[in-house]
Amino acid sequence: MNRETVRYEVTDGVLVLTLTRPENLNAFTVQMADDLEAAFDEASADPEVAAIVVTGEGKAFCAGMDLSSEGNVFGLDEDLQPTLADLYDRFDDPAIVSGVRDTGGRVSLAIYRCPKPVIGAINGAAVGIGATMTLPMDFRLASEKARIGFVFGRLGIVLEACSSWFLPRVVGMQNALELIYTADIVDAERAKDLGLVRSIHPPEELLDAAIALAHRFVDGRSPVATALMRHMLYRNSAFASPVDAHRVDSLAMYYTSIADGKEGVAAFLEKRPAQFTSTLPADLPDFLAETDSIR
Amino acid sequence: MNRETVRYEVTDGVLVLTLTRPENLNAFTVQMADDLEAAFDEASADPEVAAIVVTGEGKAFCAGMDLSSEGNVFGLDEDLQPTLADLYDRFDDPAIVSGVRDTGGRVSLAIYRCPKPVIGAINGAAVGIGATMTLPMDFRLASEKARIGFVFGRLGIVLEACSSWFLPRVVGMQNALELIYTADIVDAERAKDLGLVRSIHPPEELLDAAIALAHRFVDGRSPVATALMRHMLYRNSAFASPVDAHRVDSLAMYYTSIADGKEGVAAFLEKRPAQFTSTLPADLPDFLAETDSIR
Amino acid sequence: MNRETVRYEVTDGVLVLTLTRPENLNAFTVQMADDLEAAFDEASADPEVAAIVVTGEGKAFCAGMDLSSEGNVFGLDEDLQPTLADLYDRFDDPAIVSGVRDTGGRVSLAIYRCPKPVIGAINGAAVGIGATMTLPMDFRLASEKARIGFVFGRLGIVLEACSSWFLPRVVGMQNALELIYTADIVDAERAKDLGLVRSIHPPEELLDAAIALAHRFVDGRSPVATALMRHMLYRNSAFASPVDAHRVDSLAMYYTSIADGKEGVAAFLEKRPAQFTSTLPADLPDFLAETDSIR
Repeated sequence: MNRETVRYEVTDGVLVLTLTRPENLNAFTVQMADDLEAAFDEASADPEVAAIVVTGEGKAFCAGMDLSSEGNVFGLDEDLQPTLADLYDRFDDPAIVSGVRDTGGRVSLAIYRCPKPVIGAINGAAVGIGATMTLPMDFRLASEKARIGFVFGRLGIVLEACSSWFLPRVVGMQNALELIYTADIVDAERAKDLGLVRSIHPPEELLDAAIALAHRFVDGRSPVATALMRHMLYRNSAFASPVDAHRVDSLAMYYTSIADGKEGVAAFLEKRPAQFTSTLPADLPDFLAETDSIR
Repeated sequence: MNRETVRYEVTDGVLVLTLTRPENLNAFTVQMADDLEAAFDEASADPEVAAIVVTGEGKAFCAGMDLSSEGNVFGLDEDLQPTLADLYDRFDDPAIVSGVRDTGGRVSLAIYRCPKPVIGAINGAAVGIGATMTLPMDFRLASEKARIGFVFGRLGIVLEACSSWFLPRVVGMQNALELIYTADIVDAERAKDLGLVRSIHPPEELLDAAIALAHRFVDGRSPVATALMRHMLYRNSAFASPVDAHRVDSLAMYYTSIADGKEGVAAFLEKRPAQFTSTLPADLPDFLAETDSIR
Repeated sequence: MNRETVRYEVTDGVLVLTLTRPENLNAFTVQMADDLEAAFDEASADPEVAAIVVTGEGKAFCAGMDLSSEGNVFGLDEDLQPTLADLYDRFDDPAIVSGVRDTGGRVSLAIYRCPKPVIGAINGAAVGIGATMTLPMDFRLASEKARIGFVFGRLGIVLEACSSWFLPRVVGMQNALELIYTADIVDAERAKDLGLVRSIHPPEELLDAAIALAHRFVDGRSPVATALMRHMLYRNSAFASPVDAHRVDSLAMYYTSIADGKEGVAAFLEKRPAQFTSTLPADLPDFLAETDSIR
């Protein structure tokens, strides 16, 4: 399950995905996009994985797009002149996928459709796509040495990886605009003040803290219930009305109540730990499938 | 107007709704869902009520779903196997209403469609539905003894009562995920740090503080203007574009300007208190009616 | 380019728009709405303007709607009895535009469709429309003497200028409701605590601080990339799913990568300042045009 640029290690239900290009500060490549997308989809389908921690090998988390190769670093086909209609009608057309679609976005969508808690353990520089890829993760834990920068504006390009969707949800609109317009590389304290980072840790304790947090989320929990709650928070909150959330809530409560919920309530009443038996992806109800079929 | 599990007391325009199962820590039942839904709909239509405070009798606010009865505590019909289409096409079908639809969600929707400020006065434990039912309320004031827990994950079930729609709007996505994944019962200070609670009060001062805040919102105010502003903040902010907010704004400003707005401006210019004459629900313009017809 | 109520001064790429009715505390009139709408549209199309600062002449920012003229201060036609359908079907009908549509909303939409960073420099009282017009601006910097009040509730009218769409995005729902229901005029410190104001400055330093911030956003930056990022943050975050953000991201990254992005990456690799050549509005891709055609 290891890949060229991503290491995949599962211990006690927690997958640690490590970016393994330390000699390049884990700079992002098309290969890394492919590897991360595949790793997340694999983790989504792996019953052994309950939660995911993402970190970088060496001193950086991910220093951004690898600009070391000359020429068209984004793999774009300059002759396409795509329209917004193309991005709807030809979304899966190989010419659009490889010649137009943002590679970081493919990773973000893989994280978005993942039914398991995802924690970013930002061990060092997280710049450009290294910053934006952490936004669809549920939490950003930072080393005291972390440096985070949405530097696109300095390069004449734009924020990507669906970050315009996620960033205001995490830090509010005014802080989002500040991070994007300044294109500053901020330290962990500033990132925490802005609401971007959940907590700050000594460098040598960061990964353990992230793994410990993951265990708090999933140990003794129902995988299906956790999966549904992750999807509900992101998807339901984007509905125009709470009544549509109510429809999904009702189904999610219905299907969990007649499955792991029975054991959960029984265990609570008997004052014993619950023994949940659901597994992913086998037992996940499919009423969110349509949303998640897009990739 | 009192009901089996909810006391309904109006004083000087402020309705205090009190959950009255103190012997059960105000644990939530289908009866309580029915009572709360009816009480909110009654308050919405009651011209004597300008604002609503919700609290619990005894030492708890609401300790969650009443799990004391054996068996199917959620009233679900396990044979239904409902789909998302059923929740649209058969929303009012009695089989779906009683056998599938989340009871907490019916309460949350009754609060959502209420045209009056709603304040939760969390006097003690607010757990499960006891926590989520406070989210469609506009404010959460907490006693120093309050304990709030979105404990669903420990029971193998999911967050409900439309909380996935409301919670990220109040605390942002990262904090929402923390509260839900940990399933921790947090104290008032922690809840305030996360943005969930507006203010913390000594236990003996909580209800008075909530009532005083309600009076600040409504005394000498136009009921219709307040109603429209409540609806506009929740509904307009969920539109895809501000131009749709502008359409509603324009109508709301138009209809208030030719009614209570005339008195308000005259009183301002004459430096005297305004005497508004609009009443609810009689004078509420109906351009939001479609949204609110769903229950 | 100066107008009756708004001064238009461009220095080194930063436009300062100053409200020039100091004798009336810059109270808002239909003329000022027209002037602001025109000034923002002109600034949007002016290649010399990279960023915009809005402030007030004299001791107030904008003390609200000018109520000094007797009678129908809102210019409404009381016989129209408009419906929500009218606001869709007859949006540009002169009778609706002048007799129903909220004048503040026309200003907010002009700011929303502006492809350049906008900073409000709140030098004094910002009340009613003086407060709400700052919400579609990206940042609110406040003088120590600033006083901000969403006072609509005291006048029997409602919040406007699309503020119900913007305010919860900036301060979260609980704080938004507090500001609106209380209708209090809050000082700069309180406004900062609530997340409304970015930073507080001595009165004599406010304008310089706002201009300096504007320069940090745009000096040496690609106008097209900045424009797209502003639009993406507001528009993409309102989509129901990040996959729709991904579509726009992909196009925005594609078109910037084959234009200013080439220079930006080259300059980065050569460790020299970038010399971007794009101009607005000439080089702005039109895939967001549909959204922005509404005015």
